[in-house]
Amino acid sequence: MKRFEIVPNFSEGRRKEIIDELCRCYSEMPGVILLDHESDEDHNRSVLTAVGEEQALSDATMAACRIAMREIDLNHHQGGHPRMGAMDVLPFLPLEDATTEDAVAAAHRLGQRLWDELKVPVYFYEEASVGPAKKLLPQIRKGNFEGLREAVKTQPERRPDVGGPDLHETFGASVIGARLPLVAFNVYLNTLDLDVAKQIAKTVRESSGGMRNVRAIAIDTRAQGNVQVSMNLVDVEKTPIHRAYEFVEREAHQLGVTVASSEIVGLVPLSAMLACAVRSLHLKGFQEEQVLEVRLMREDRQQR
Amino acid sequence: MKRFEIVPNFSEGRRKEIIDELCRCYSEMPGVILLDHESDEDHNRSVLTAVGEEQALSDATMAACRIAMREIDLNHHQGGHPRMGAMDVLPFLPLEDATTEDAVAAAHRLGQRLWDELKVPVYFYEEASVGPAKKLLPQIRKGNFEGLREAVKTQPERRPDVGGPDLHETFGASVIGARLPLVAFNVYLNTLDLDVAKQIAKTVRESSGGMRNVRAIAIDTRAQGNVQVSMNLVDVEKTPIHRAYEFVEREAHQLGVTVASSEIVGLVPLSAMLACAVRSLHLKGFQEEQVLEVRLMREDRQQR
Repeated sequence: MKRFEIVPNFSEGRRKEIIDELCRCYSEMPGVILLDHESDEDHNRSVLTAVGEEQALSDATMAACRIAMREIDLNHHQGGHPRMGAMDVLPFLPLEDATTEDAVAAAHRLGQRLWDELKVPVYFYEEASVGPAKKLLPQIRKGNFEGLREAVKTQPERRPDVGGPDLHETFGASVIGARLPLVAFNVYLNTLDLDVAKQIAKTVRESSGGMRNVRAIAIDTRAQGNVQVSMNLVDVEKTPIHRAYEFVEREAHQLGVTVASSEIVGLVPLSAMLACAVRSLHLKGFQEEQVLEVRLMREDRQQR
Repeated sequence: MKRFEIVPNFSEGRRKEIIDELCRCYSEMPGVILLDHESDEDHNRSVLTAVGEEQALSDATMAACRIAMREIDLNHHQGGHPRMGAMDVLPFLPLEDATTEDAVAAAHRLGQRLWDELKVPVYFYEEASVGPAKKLLPQIRKGNFEGLREAVKTQPERRPDVGGPDLHETFGASVIGARLPLVAFNVYLNTLDLDVAKQIAKTVRESSGGMRNVRAIAIDTRAQGNVQVSMNLVDVEKTPIHRAYEFVEREAHQLGVTVASSEIVGLVPLSAMLACAVRSLHLKGFQEEQVLEVRLMREDRQQR
């Protein structure tokens, strides 16, 4: 089964009836599961999480974008979060038998559809980037709706990948992409010295020379009696949770500090958890199908 | 969802057409998944593994027992494995939301049905034992069909729990019970000294004073360049895999030997694998619903 998780971000976080209407586009679409939705009034933004096969997810998203087109005018949108489109950003995350390539193809098809049917220009980011360099969201969205609207007139390199070159007058433009599911993994340290967490975060994160696929910052949790190294693991296949944990533990040890505990925030792929178990038991030859529930799930699906 | 795994053992491992007919009772029953079946000609025995809700599993088993009644005569059955019935033994293992109590109740109902509909007397074992002491399979089956047939005539304590007291003339009697899924877990040691594995097996197993819920023997795998401590973990909720692993590792260390690797043979509950991951990462507050696939499985079920 090739399903995807998508995380569409809409530039509306205040009007409950509009948010409900956007959510229903997903929750009432056959074959789509709306896993989560969060709205923030200060950001004036709603983040939905939905799972399904490509066609159903794209149909639901087109329906939601029609509502966004009708209800959201970026010329009058106020909010604390950067944004450039009424449907601002949407990544496809491959699940089950879907590959990153499948997610990229789904992103490209949805982008084309958004232009064809609604005349919303689209940028592709992360794995779905077109052209030689991988484009990241902050680069594309630099200047927000207001700045980008002007930039496309004079800077060809900032023009959309599909449609345009001008942004849609009220909707703006959307950023669609593909990436792996990320794991939010925090490690708590038995110290009240926030500098220790800062130093370890700097050592572990990719951007300052640490481990690939790890983003890390220090978080002040001294009110709880400890400090936190907060990580986003953006590719747990290549850089598994246990390796990040062991890295932090080793660095903490060097600084004379012990690990108090850790936590995973939100969802985590089964394979990432099994990899930790396999590692800790030195298991050889273990297959995901040996997990009883996985076996049952697959048999159940075949019987349907 | 309250499903069970059952592992019916039939005293027929040679006539393929009969074995196929027994398997079809399960594989063709709506709501039943036949996960596995293994036949051994020397043992003249077939072991099936099926999953489903109680009613469907019991209906399938009654159909299979009718075939066993027609085709198997224990007076003429030859085989290397101990046996006392045409359908010799069948444990119910609770899965998903089912509890051990549910499994015991299902075992008792099936036993009554076997007597009511086919006049096969039934013994209950393990968690489903009736009376003050927990009865184990080898005690009940002592003497096999031939010996037990005589014993029930003179020893009241050896009589069936349901029906009888005489065994069925051709079918014998069945042993039905309830137990937790067990995990077959082997640890390989970097040594060719089999005595090291024997000593550790003796130290770790419950019966000689080690850990509760652990059965262990040494296995000679010197041809592969190591030796093995082979364990059955019969309650991984109470005595988790990682604790057995750490116990063996510590004992090996005392004897100057290192662990080479480990393996899990066959199926393992998801919760047991997650417990190992949680342990190795010092994870706090982790919920099974955080596993993406678990969340999807539950949502999928609700949508059906």
